[in-house]
Amino acid sequence: MPYIQVEDHLPGITGLLEYRKDTAGPIRRLTQFLLRGPNTLTEAERELIATVVSNGNQCRFCTAAHTAAADVLLGECDTTASVKQDIINAPVSNKMKALLTIADMVRKSGKDVTEAAIARAKAEGATDTEIHDTVLIAALFCLYNRYVDGLATVAPTDQSFYNGLGQRLKDHGYNRLPQGYDHLKNNPH
Amino acid sequence: MPYIQVEDHLPGITGLLEYRKDTAGPIRRLTQFLLRGPNTLTEAERELIATVVSNGNQCRFCTAAHTAAADVLLGECDTTASVKQDIINAPVSNKMKALLTIADMVRKSGKDVTEAAIARAKAEGATDTEIHDTVLIAALFCLYNRYVDGLATVAPTDQSFYNGLGQRLKDHGYNRLPQGYDHLKNNPH
Repeated sequence: MPYIQVEDHLPGITGLLEYRKDTAGPIRRLTQFLLRGPNTLTEAERELIATVVSNGNQCRFCTAAHTAAADVLLGECDTTASVKQDIINAPVSNKMKALLTIADMVRKSGKDVTEAAIARAKAEGATDTEIHDTVLIAALFCLYNRYVDGLATVAPTDQSFYNGLGQRLKDHGYNRLPQGYDHLKNNPH
Repeated sequence: MPYIQVEDHLPGITGLLEYRKDTAGPIRRLTQFLLRGPNTLTEAERELIATVVSNGNQCRFCTAAHTAAADVLLGECDTTASVKQDIINAPVSNKMKALLTIADMVRKSGKDVTEAAIARAKAEGATDTEIHDTVLIAALFCLYNRYVDGLATVAPTDQSFYNGLGQRLKDHGYNRLPQGYDHLKNNPH
């Protein structure tokens, strides 16, 4: 049971974003810009950063949600399964291997990010902005994972919940759904 | 030397907020609301949460900056020195001891927050919103600490830099300073 009174039908982060709309607004906008804004990293690549960090932090809700979002964006489930096991042997570009390695260092501590890891990312073609965004996305998911688990929110066990959420995060991103979404959600266009 | 090219004269978080203004906007607004918005926790109490988390994460820039902000708000330096050493014996209310203990658990992992710690905070009079805000402030500083150290930004060694920053955070909060601030900063009223 969550440590504070959130709505029963809103698990994980969803109940927290409804609980305190004044904080939810800027959190949603930051996430929307970082994960869906204009970027030389694809949306799927940015979801992989969220997935690797949430998985490392053992946050069940966030890991399942961002795995599902990346799977929908990629059209397959093998890549997320691989990066969660072993970044270096996963089927992603060398640049992404370097960036995901940095993200996992950030997850443990900002101080763990080594000059060698940054040099490797740059050698693989990562720009300063891509390195910046990787570090900030990893840091943001360290916030999310602690927010979701620190208040003991509920993580549904039903995979179909996350499949639906992943599809919604692909179709609508991280902004608040407009009123009337319930009516439209099975026919978003 | 920072891992990405930030302006030399802007140390710690300040250079990162200038580097990427699209992400700085919502980060500033979230921080302003959590640390300076209407709240039953005082501004000094909220700065103590930021201080304890940044100190635990050994982020030199953030620890010095928020220690200075709390010192200015409290009008003394003993409380920050104490909470960084030992929360339980620090000269703060029992409610704040319970909330700072939760913040330090969140810092390590969201999963580390125990039912007993939450029960103790509630027994000391903490409301759901105060518990929510404590967890989210702690999570936010886990983001900041990783952002600042993960990109190897510079932390000035000169204490007067932080004294000035602490005063500015009291007088102006976390919103972007308006143009012309340089002219006004020694005479903010």
